[in-house]
Amino acid sequence: MSALDTHPGEGRQAAALAEIREIVGPKGWLDDPEARAPHLTDWRKLYTGRAAAVVRPASTEEVAAVVRRCAEARIPIVPQGGNTGLVGGAAPHEAGTEIVLLTDRLSRIREVDPVGNTVTVEAGVVLQDIQQAAAEADRLFPLALGAQGSCHIGGNLATNAGGLNVLRYGNARDLVLGLEVVLPDGRVWDGLSGLRKDNTGYDLKHLFVGSEGTLGIVTAAVLKLFPQPRQVMTAMLAVADPAAAVSLLHKAQEASGGQLVAFELVPKFAIDLAVAHVEGVENPVGGDTGWYVLLEFATPSTESAFIDALEQFVEKTFEEELVVDGTIAANEAQRAGLWRLREAIIEAQDRAGAQLKHDVSVAVAKVPDFIAEATAVAEAEEPGVRVVAFGHVGDGNVHLNLVQPEGADGAAFMARSDALSQAVYDVVVAMGGSISAEHGIGRLKKADLAARKSPVALDLMRKIKRALDPDGLMNPGKLLE
Amino acid sequence: MSALDTHPGEGRQAAALAEIREIVGPKGWLDDPEARAPHLTDWRKLYTGRAAAVVRPASTEEVAAVVRRCAEARIPIVPQGGNTGLVGGAAPHEAGTEIVLLTDRLSRIREVDPVGNTVTVEAGVVLQDIQQAAAEADRLFPLALGAQGSCHIGGNLATNAGGLNVLRYGNARDLVLGLEVVLPDGRVWDGLSGLRKDNTGYDLKHLFVGSEGTLGIVTAAVLKLFPQPRQVMTAMLAVADPAAAVSLLHKAQEASGGQLVAFELVPKFAIDLAVAHVEGVENPVGGDTGWYVLLEFATPSTESAFIDALEQFVEKTFEEELVVDGTIAANEAQRAGLWRLREAIIEAQDRAGAQLKHDVSVAVAKVPDFIAEATAVAEAEEPGVRVVAFGHVGDGNVHLNLVQPEGADGAAFMARSDALSQAVYDVVVAMGGSISAEHGIGRLKKADLAARKSPVALDLMRKIKRALDPDGLMNPGKLLE
Repeated sequence: MSALDTHPGEGRQAAALAEIREIVGPKGWLDDPEARAPHLTDWRKLYTGRAAAVVRPASTEEVAAVVRRCAEARIPIVPQGGNTGLVGGAAPHEAGTEIVLLTDRLSRIREVDPVGNTVTVEAGVVLQDIQQAAAEADRLFPLALGAQGSCHIGGNLATNAGGLNVLRYGNARDLVLGLEVVLPDGRVWDGLSGLRKDNTGYDLKHLFVGSEGTLGIVTAAVLKLFPQPRQVMTAMLAVADPAAAVSLLHKAQEASGGQLVAFELVPKFAIDLAVAHVEGVENPVGGDTGWYVLLEFATPSTESAFIDALEQFVEKTFEEELVVDGTIAANEAQRAGLWRLREAIIEAQDRAGAQLKHDVSVAVAKVPDFIAEATAVAEAEEPGVRVVAFGHVGDGNVHLNLVQPEGADGAAFMARSDALSQAVYDVVVAMGGSISAEHGIGRLKKADLAARKSPVALDLMRKIKRALDPDGLMNPGKLLE
Repeated sequence: MSALDTHPGEGRQAAALAEIREIVGPKGWLDDPEARAPHLTDWRKLYTGRAAAVVRPASTEEVAAVVRRCAEARIPIVPQGGNTGLVGGAAPHEAGTEIVLLTDRLSRIREVDPVGNTVTVEAGVVLQDIQQAAAEADRLFPLALGAQGSCHIGGNLATNAGGLNVLRYGNARDLVLGLEVVLPDGRVWDGLSGLRKDNTGYDLKHLFVGSEGTLGIVTAAVLKLFPQPRQVMTAMLAVADPAAAVSLLHKAQEASGGQLVAFELVPKFAIDLAVAHVEGVENPVGGDTGWYVLLEFATPSTESAFIDALEQFVEKTFEEELVVDGTIAANEAQRAGLWRLREAIIEAQDRAGAQLKHDVSVAVAKVPDFIAEATAVAEAEEPGVRVVAFGHVGDGNVHLNLVQPEGADGAAFMARSDALSQAVYDVVVAMGGSISAEHGIGRLKKADLAARKSPVALDLMRKIKRALDPDGLMNPGKLLE
């Protein structure tokens, strides 16, 4: 209990910790420093803290009992899922007064209901396992993101994860029909009815989704399932500029009857980087246009006419000169190759030197202007900076990554990073955009949120936080001050 | 000011009302009793109250100024849109201490953005006018319901309206990208950025949608637009029972690639009622099966293959004997005829005698069991009662209407209605369902909510209410006690 020694009320806290140890049992209590270490730091290793305890309750009831005991003893709690977040939201603070509460033993898929098209899962289920269980029931669970092999659904919901299929299926928020949540006082809110329509008061689930563990701990969820896609068409098409990409987006949505699953804008420079830095990668399209779109359609229909219509659509975009070059994946291997290219782009940026990432969004119609303005601002602030603006155009979500000037000092570049980021955020906020489209706030962007979000919105959030967690014990110092 | 004469603090309130009269000007102040009358009662005339004033502010700024003045003088406010709600949520109380605040002069469509697929509207815009504005921009705004010619979008959002297209496009909630809200203290929260992705803190818009005016007044919204449907196929198909209907639902969703817009279950008895009571109505299918499904597919694609595939799908359901009889509308007139039949069903129930309506929902997979159990319970409670269970199966939303026994005394039947309703709600709650799927709570179902909703959920709602509206001035006595 050394972490608590320097704090008042240590007797009460020590007693509470002993009781909590009883509640979770030997399997639920991490003593070994090596076993604890990965839970005391975040995935990007931006923050490394200490903890009064690291506990792994095995059920909702155990989570509730732990939280109740913490509430009584005023011990703050940091909930942690797969710990794959990018903004330090699941790491404990340096003071070591917090309990890190892991949800990984809440790992049951409680029910797959192919008739109601729902799956009920506990918070600690790995995202990929949900996708798998859905597929086994001949259904699709569409949430998909890079960390899906290790992230937990509880964390996905607490952070309202985005990912690759948002355009067609929405964020994690949009996939939730119900939640079970342990509240800051240890009571359990059972909202697992899985109703698709329910107008009986305030929508509580939407309050917890995206709250980053600051209002309670999600212990289970009812999620939506969809028909499995039976046919997929993937293409990479070259366009003149981002405005042409936005125009292509709408035509593609219309032509496919809304079956457009992905629409990723990629600048040629990013592909050139990938070709230069990642082995085995080629530009499948070529040409000298500045921009490409990686798009994918998918339909649960088995009618080949669907694909025929899409091929006609792509031909027409060539005839209209909206698309100037491109390739349609003729088979699964080519399709996988196009998606590998997208991954290689991300990898290549890491290899090209120090880089500063921004996960921002604006209204879809403003994407072209945003890319132009943000690029100009970054180049003015840091001459020679290499701007890679790519991402989910259909959601207005641009990953604006600034790679250090070629041959420059990476450390010196990063030392100037705050000024560069603030210049980018100035453009974002002036356009009514968001400084965190999908990665959340956590600890990393808390100061930016405080500076950039409307004071009225911040005040509403603080009021809600105080109403639900008056002692400020749930993931303190994350999201809000 | 006679309504205030009997209350303490009348001097302060009279002064505040005089100031509010200045704020809204002559056009914004309703003095004429005849002009005020329709705003003092609800659409079903369940409640008729009085008001200290009926005001019509002309802008968000005027709404904010009125609310600020009310907050200072502790004058409660009842926001009112098109006043088409079914649960008395927009009618003032009998005491006459409240101000009724009409949003009908906030009637501008601020912007239609066909590139970003959004429309920005003020609260007082009539739903049908938004549909129209979207259509003029070659887009679809999919919210559609019976009252669309007179209901206001502000009310639709405050009550999270459902309607006919929920299966494909979601409730009102799902169509909102942003809100502008006047808070209980008169501040304005401007959440109109219209972002499709924004993970910067708690999702405030979802808190206001469905809050029935108890947390603030929605003054404007950014809404999602969709591609216009170019091809529609509507059919009425006979099935053996509700379980067959649920099975058909999934096959239809899969075969159409999710382009199923409506899926309405109708018992044959309801059609018989319509044929008997409404002139010019015929059963277009015939046969002696107990149940029918009215379903509609729509796609923005112009490819005729889409319709061909659906026709093949319907044929296959016949071959599989899932569907035992049916008709596909061959033209727009036949399509309109099928939808008129649905309206006639509602009309016929009114004509068949006294009836008791329930707008409930359960998980989709439980719909067949719910209909069977609720029917049995109702028939046991009231021998001879005629049960009409119809509605949006795809959302799990059943309109369970109980028509008085043939030839019985309607008034006596209605006098026993509470016991009958409670018996139905027992079944709903035992199945984890909702006692108000789309109509909300308002004043009518407040006691049922208090009795039926989980105490934890109610406590969370009350905490949020107190946090945002500590003086309880926003639509008091609605939704929560």
